[in-house]
Amino acid sequence: MEKVLRDPIHNHIYVQHQVVLDLINTREFQRLRRIKQLGTTSYTFHGAEHSRFSHSVGVYEITRQICDLFARNYPSQSPDDGLWDDDERIVALCAALLHDLGHGPYSHTFEHIFKTDHEQMTTDIITSPETEVNQVLRQVSPDFPAKVASVIQKAYKNPQVVQMISSQIDADRMDYLLRDSYFTGTNYGNFDLTRILRVMRPYQDGITFDISGMHAVEDYIVSRFQMYQQVYFHPVSRSMEVILSHLLKRAKYLYRENQLQLNGATDLLVPFLTGNFTLNDYLNLDDGVLNTCFAVWRNSSDEILSDLASRFLDRHPLKSVRLAANTKKYLPTLKKLVSEAGYSPEYYLDTNDSYDLPYDAYDPSSKKPRTQIELMQKDHSLVELSAISALVKSITGRVSGDERLFFPREMLAKSDQADLFSPVYAEFNRYIHNDHLIDPNNNRAE
Amino acid sequence: MEKVLRDPIHNHIYVQHQVVLDLINTREFQRLRRIKQLGTTSYTFHGAEHSRFSHSVGVYEITRQICDLFARNYPSQSPDDGLWDDDERIVALCAALLHDLGHGPYSHTFEHIFKTDHEQMTTDIITSPETEVNQVLRQVSPDFPAKVASVIQKAYKNPQVVQMISSQIDADRMDYLLRDSYFTGTNYGNFDLTRILRVMRPYQDGITFDISGMHAVEDYIVSRFQMYQQVYFHPVSRSMEVILSHLLKRAKYLYRENQLQLNGATDLLVPFLTGNFTLNDYLNLDDGVLNTCFAVWRNSSDEILSDLASRFLDRHPLKSVRLAANTKKYLPTLKKLVSEAGYSPEYYLDTNDSYDLPYDAYDPSSKKPRTQIELMQKDHSLVELSAISALVKSITGRVSGDERLFFPREMLAKSDQADLFSPVYAEFNRYIHNDHLIDPNNNRAE
Amino acid sequence: MEKVLRDPIHNHIYVQHQVVLDLINTREFQRLRRIKQLGTTSYTFHGAEHSRFSHSVGVYEITRQICDLFARNYPSQSPDDGLWDDDERIVALCAALLHDLGHGPYSHTFEHIFKTDHEQMTTDIITSPETEVNQVLRQVSPDFPAKVASVIQKAYKNPQVVQMISSQIDADRMDYLLRDSYFTGTNYGNFDLTRILRVMRPYQDGITFDISGMHAVEDYIVSRFQMYQQVYFHPVSRSMEVILSHLLKRAKYLYRENQLQLNGATDLLVPFLTGNFTLNDYLNLDDGVLNTCFAVWRNSSDEILSDLASRFLDRHPLKSVRLAANTKKYLPTLKKLVSEAGYSPEYYLDTNDSYDLPYDAYDPSSKKPRTQIELMQKDHSLVELSAISALVKSITGRVSGDERLFFPREMLAKSDQADLFSPVYAEFNRYIHNDHLIDPNNNRAE
Amino acid sequence: MEKVLRDPIHNHIYVQHQVVLDLINTREFQRLRRIKQLGTTSYTFHGAEHSRFSHSVGVYEITRQICDLFARNYPSQSPDDGLWDDDERIVALCAALLHDLGHGPYSHTFEHIFKTDHEQMTTDIITSPETEVNQVLRQVSPDFPAKVASVIQKAYKNPQVVQMISSQIDADRMDYLLRDSYFTGTNYGNFDLTRILRVMRPYQDGITFDISGMHAVEDYIVSRFQMYQQVYFHPVSRSMEVILSHLLKRAKYLYRENQLQLNGATDLLVPFLTGNFTLNDYLNLDDGVLNTCFAVWRNSSDEILSDLASRFLDRHPLKSVRLAANTKKYLPTLKKLVSEAGYSPEYYLDTNDSYDLPYDAYDPSSKKPRTQIELMQKDHSLVELSAISALVKSITGRVSGDERLFFPREMLAKSDQADLFSPVYAEFNRYIHNDHLIDPNNNRAE
Repeated sequence: MEKVLRDPIHNHIYVQHQVVLDLINTREFQRLRRIKQLGTTSYTFHGAEHSRFSHSVGVYEITRQICDLFARNYPSQSPDDGLWDDDERIVALCAALLHDLGHGPYSHTFEHIFKTDHEQMTTDIITSPETEVNQVLRQVSPDFPAKVASVIQKAYKNPQVVQMISSQIDADRMDYLLRDSYFTGTNYGNFDLTRILRVMRPYQDGITFDISGMHAVEDYIVSRFQMYQQVYFHPVSRSMEVILSHLLKRAKYLYRENQLQLNGATDLLVPFLTGNFTLNDYLNLDDGVLNTCFAVWRNSSDEILSDLASRFLDRHPLKSVRLAANTKKYLPTLKKLVSEAGYSPEYYLDTNDSYDLPYDAYDPSSKKPRTQIELMQKDHSLVELSAISALVKSITGRVSGDERLFFPREMLAKSDQADLFSPVYAEFNRYIHNDHLIDPNNNRAE
Repeated sequence: MEKVLRDPIHNHIYVQHQVVLDLINTREFQRLRRIKQLGTTSYTFHGAEHSRFSHSVGVYEITRQICDLFARNYPSQSPDDGLWDDDERIVALCAALLHDLGHGPYSHTFEHIFKTDHEQMTTDIITSPETEVNQVLRQVSPDFPAKVASVIQKAYKNPQVVQMISSQIDADRMDYLLRDSYFTGTNYGNFDLTRILRVMRPYQDGITFDISGMHAVEDYIVSRFQMYQQVYFHPVSRSMEVILSHLLKRAKYLYRENQLQLNGATDLLVPFLTGNFTLNDYLNLDDGVLNTCFAVWRNSSDEILSDLASRFLDRHPLKSVRLAANTKKYLPTLKKLVSEAGYSPEYYLDTNDSYDLPYDAYDPSSKKPRTQIELMQKDHSLVELSAISALVKSITGRVSGDERLFFPREMLAKSDQADLFSPVYAEFNRYIHNDHLIDPNNNRAE
Repeated sequence: MEKVLRDPIHNHIYVQHQVVLDLINTREFQRLRRIKQLGTTSYTFHGAEHSRFSHSVGVYEITRQICDLFARNYPSQSPDDGLWDDDERIVALCAALLHDLGHGPYSHTFEHIFKTDHEQMTTDIITSPETEVNQVLRQVSPDFPAKVASVIQKAYKNPQVVQMISSQIDADRMDYLLRDSYFTGTNYGNFDLTRILRVMRPYQDGITFDISGMHAVEDYIVSRFQMYQQVYFHPVSRSMEVILSHLLKRAKYLYRENQLQLNGATDLLVPFLTGNFTLNDYLNLDDGVLNTCFAVWRNSSDEILSDLASRFLDRHPLKSVRLAANTKKYLPTLKKLVSEAGYSPEYYLDTNDSYDLPYDAYDPSSKKPRTQIELMQKDHSLVELSAISALVKSITGRVSGDERLFFPREMLAKSDQADLFSPVYAEFNRYIHNDHLIDPNNNRAE
Repeated sequence: MEKVLRDPIHNHIYVQHQVVLDLINTREFQRLRRIKQLGTTSYTFHGAEHSRFSHSVGVYEITRQICDLFARNYPSQSPDDGLWDDDERIVALCAALLHDLGHGPYSHTFEHIFKTDHEQMTTDIITSPETEVNQVLRQVSPDFPAKVASVIQKAYKNPQVVQMISSQIDADRMDYLLRDSYFTGTNYGNFDLTRILRVMRPYQDGITFDISGMHAVEDYIVSRFQMYQQVYFHPVSRSMEVILSHLLKRAKYLYRENQLQLNGATDLLVPFLTGNFTLNDYLNLDDGVLNTCFAVWRNSSDEILSDLASRFLDRHPLKSVRLAANTKKYLPTLKKLVSEAGYSPEYYLDTNDSYDLPYDAYDPSSKKPRTQIELMQKDHSLVELSAISALVKSITGRVSGDERLFFPREMLAKSDQADLFSPVYAEFNRYIHNDHLIDPNNNRAE
């Protein structure tokens, strides 16, 4: 019953089990079509309008390819020989497909404001008897939903299955790097997927890589580092997230103060404004529902709500500069200046940091799960990646990213706009130099 | 003030005029981010989630490149020498950018049901003093909005400018073939853009192509033909459009009968249900607003509305087969069978045709504008494309496409589902063979 | 023992049998590295410098993928069930790899002048006990070399194996279209390989295609048509072949007249000049050996030999125009003019035609093997491609290509080169117009 | 007179000056078609058969694009304003096109054995009155050849022109990374050329990059690092170079001993065997001439010459392992073992190191030219790349590469080949482990 989906990244996605096809056809999975994979990133890279649906089937496809390779080249002959038991295929495929099922619209910002948790929602959707997903999974066996959920929670007994979905080099990360790279139109996320798949191999403790593929693995780590630097941490996307966050915060505040005009569209948000929502309430949300609320709020009598809604819908980002430890002390001054210029600092000035740990070698004293990448040598002994790659070593254990200060673009008025260029703007501009917040008397970033 | 946008098709989009940048930043243009370029096609090709925003900047960019090439290679020396007058650049760029501005959500289906007209809306947005777009355009000159609109309406005096945006090989078609091809992940729309640009040249009556590029032009025509056959006319996308059309029709019916429960989300639709809407009402619509209505209707007490809304949101397409002139006579019988199976034929059975005229040579007796492609020979005489290309000749003047009959998938019940397989299903299946509606006593499609 | 070769077209080429690896490592197969796939085409498309080695491993890889798909989806259950018997895999793979083994340098021109036959040479290399290839094949079984040869000669009993290598859509054509397209940097040869492979299926009489893949097959036929028009028949490459042909003809003439100075490099050519060569003599030839001869001949005292060698090595193509039936009558006049300008017409004027039959439907009265493409409908009945594809029908049974007249570029002297522009040049130019040979009194091509 | 060449990397190469077209048509430049860009690398990556011709026109094209961007965005208004003087375009283009003109076949190995110097040859070809290249250049002005040569020698007065062709990020390196990546079919050399070109800018001391492009520059440096690691330093290609080097060394030895049978093909090598060659002798050489010599030597009565020639032509590489400082002491022992196995250690055992300095920051105390990459901040101050990029800092000043020991594959006989597995082989194998030469009593590489 092989079916195929045409996919720009993997060319075709091969669906070879009825249960996988049925899962794709559920209401909960189809909802992922209405949630963008990268949230506000499409405001910076307009091509990046792809959905979590497209990423999810991509993760499934990479997992399917890994299973095929393992089944062909490393089939288990006896229990505990550390090779691949192909009976695990179906749980791996379902977990891969469903791993992002609980994401909501503009996931991280929404969660932050409304205290939701997409990982918990994923588990709930899989294990709650009322969902179509759960009904499909139960047809495999009564305990199958719980098994799939445990893979996603990294609690499943077979570490190979867990690491396919969640590890330094897993199907999830490999798909999103390639896919986000393709849709943004940047090249930074490109790496050699077929070579990585070729050198992957199962072993007792999970998944390792043949040492002949060291450079392909290295290239993957560097690509990931660069995508974070270039795409995921882009200041304009983060600026739009800051606006979104302030907009939702303002709505929450107005609702608490009974000043938020409600109507049907915003009805769907009420359970979250009250903090009392059901799984079904959550499944009703998508990007379009939130944007429809914003379209209504655009006409609100509350000026801040209305202005922030317009800024978000019409893409008027805040400006930003880098912030360092020794320049944070100027924030109160800037707050005062922004306020004098007529903007509520609570809603128009903010800092936002984005950090990533591109790669970390195992720290024996740490309690967190073992996440390092091991390479297998010809004699089957293992060597940790950063021990042999200078490139990877250089970013191991280091965080990448920056902290930025966001403020209205209007503060950077040009001097030829004489009427705007009152002392408050001039003063503000003294703190801004070369994309950094600076000591105005020193003119240096750090 | 050159700015660039990163684009997956053209790599970079170069914005070199303040007016272009200001147009992109208007509310009306940003709204195009919330309208998918291909409507229901993403239900078939999941990568095709790109918006009209991304296509619009692409059309702008191709037009910009044509202007650059014309200015470099064919600069006008005197009025009426048939060469390129670079003073026309700005009107060409603005028209290219704005040519799709009036599109609404799920454009063709919505227009069909609600009698809107996206071309008229485009003109209205450009020429109505209340829009941000109009305000930006007026800064160029008071008559500039009207000039831009006249290019889009093909009424502008300079045929070169008109044909850049609207002709057999224009920036619009070239961008969408490449872009839709990229996002669907098919190759059919690929053609050699740089070669076509290289052989394009202005002349007295518009734009022609150097004969050395004949095969590139031929390839473009064939690519267009194939994209229609393979992507734009795909039965599953058309099936989702049929559902959408019936869903909107049902809502309209219920509203007229005062049986449509209204609330805030659907408020935004009311002006269209009543047939009395303003430009601002129109600009409030986008894909998300419609989908939010459907999410509300999903819980309607009207079973047909609720079922069609679910089918649309959860992607449960109707099945379809090809229909021919001599098998149309069976439609009443099939209607009866569908009805007996419990489906209202008015909402669950429909025919839909999709036809395209891939290329047409000029017919001197015809009143429509001259649309044929002319190639320029070494001695500057012109020859019409289909006169020298066998491939193009083969599809000239022929329509491509088909008419299909859509019906619920449930009618094709498998024989192993004994309880479903009542005589009505068995009878229905006798009419379906090899993707065609057939004479059940003859077993042949045509 | 899986080994991989990195390949730009197929990403990786998977070698999974020792016999395939051993064949690749033979002297006869490695020799293909020193013979360009496209001969003089790299003079037009400088990227097209790839060798027959790279194409040959590509044909092997596509064949391997077809075998994999057939074995997975259509495994034979009983003799004569028309499905795929995977015991045929090894003979298919070896035939695919070796099908071009007998090609020599600048194959077609060389064959034409020296009466060699690359198909016969392929058979000889496979079946002669002295070759390394034969020794490797004999290790499979004593009759294995003969079996492999019979596949290449289309005499093998299993039509599926034969059609994999030789049919309208075979591994050979599919690889060269993609490969030549990639290396030339044109897009014309691109088609959807994965989709075609997906719809291929074995049946009693060979290989057919599922009707759902009709457009992919159509696209392949059109791509092939376009590659011939745009790349393989390019006038400049043909012009270089005309020079090469005249150069070898002159050498043969001089040798016969005992006027060809011989030395070591040209020693390798002597067996061919005498018409008396062994298999080993043939295997000693490659592009570099021929070019080395030409480097020696560049300094020959025979002016024609020396001039033609320089023209070939330094890429000084002849000019050309199209020739039609009704303009051939001017050839004697042109010959006279060329001769008056100081060029021997025998070596500096020539016609060359290049024709291809892009697709042909079966003609029952014809004796040639059945070559049409059959598509399989849902009820397993077959329909011939051109019966349902307007595009294919348009090129079915029609030859594409042209006949051209080649002459020294010097004949087209510009009028500002007053000294050259004697009456003979002026007269010659009267016959040349819009890339055609014309009636000078009519100024029209046809 | 714009002409275009179709190119797989840059799509089209635009030739806009007659002098450039004339240079391409010279004998000396056309000779580059017969010399592979990557020498023995095509033995490892079979797609990498592209010539120095194709790279050279690519370097020209990138330089042309840089000139265009500089002329458009940074045109010089007055002498010494540090901006771009477009009068320098023609010398930049010619130098770009000709910078590799002096390369011979298998350049580095040939130079090493025969003490030739391709940089000197480039200068000689440009400045010697007898070459066609010189004659074309002289038509610009009498001192033009010397100017072009001085750019290539980095002695030209305008540092912008010099750095376009020779610097950390120059047109040469940018083209070869992209081109070698494309033809090998690896992705490692991909970087974002259009973005780099966009952020490039001229300044007083040469060429700098806008800081907004920091990550694109970083990505380029990392790509270059990876191409060296993955492609240029591949052990199999180096092994083929070791064989080639020994083969030429053997020929030289035999010639000196009057034991090299000479004939026509090898005649072309005699001037180099004697160490007494003219520019014309040099220009007669190409890959095909050398391979033709080897084809003759394959039948030599000298067993070493004959065996090495066969190994080279038929691609039988030596095996290799990594060598470290503390394992070099075992080389005499291994030499003895190889000798006992019947191989002359002088011709069958060798070490080869390949090192690259991926990036180096300026060392003020160093006398070598300033090669670091400077980024320009918003206030036009400069910052050195490794000061702000952790990735680049990690590879700054570090050499990458390794030293390897090469030996006949036959030394690694498998234990099941009982007859071969005499004590000498067993002893040899004790020194080889996990791709390293090891202490046989310790079993560890280092």
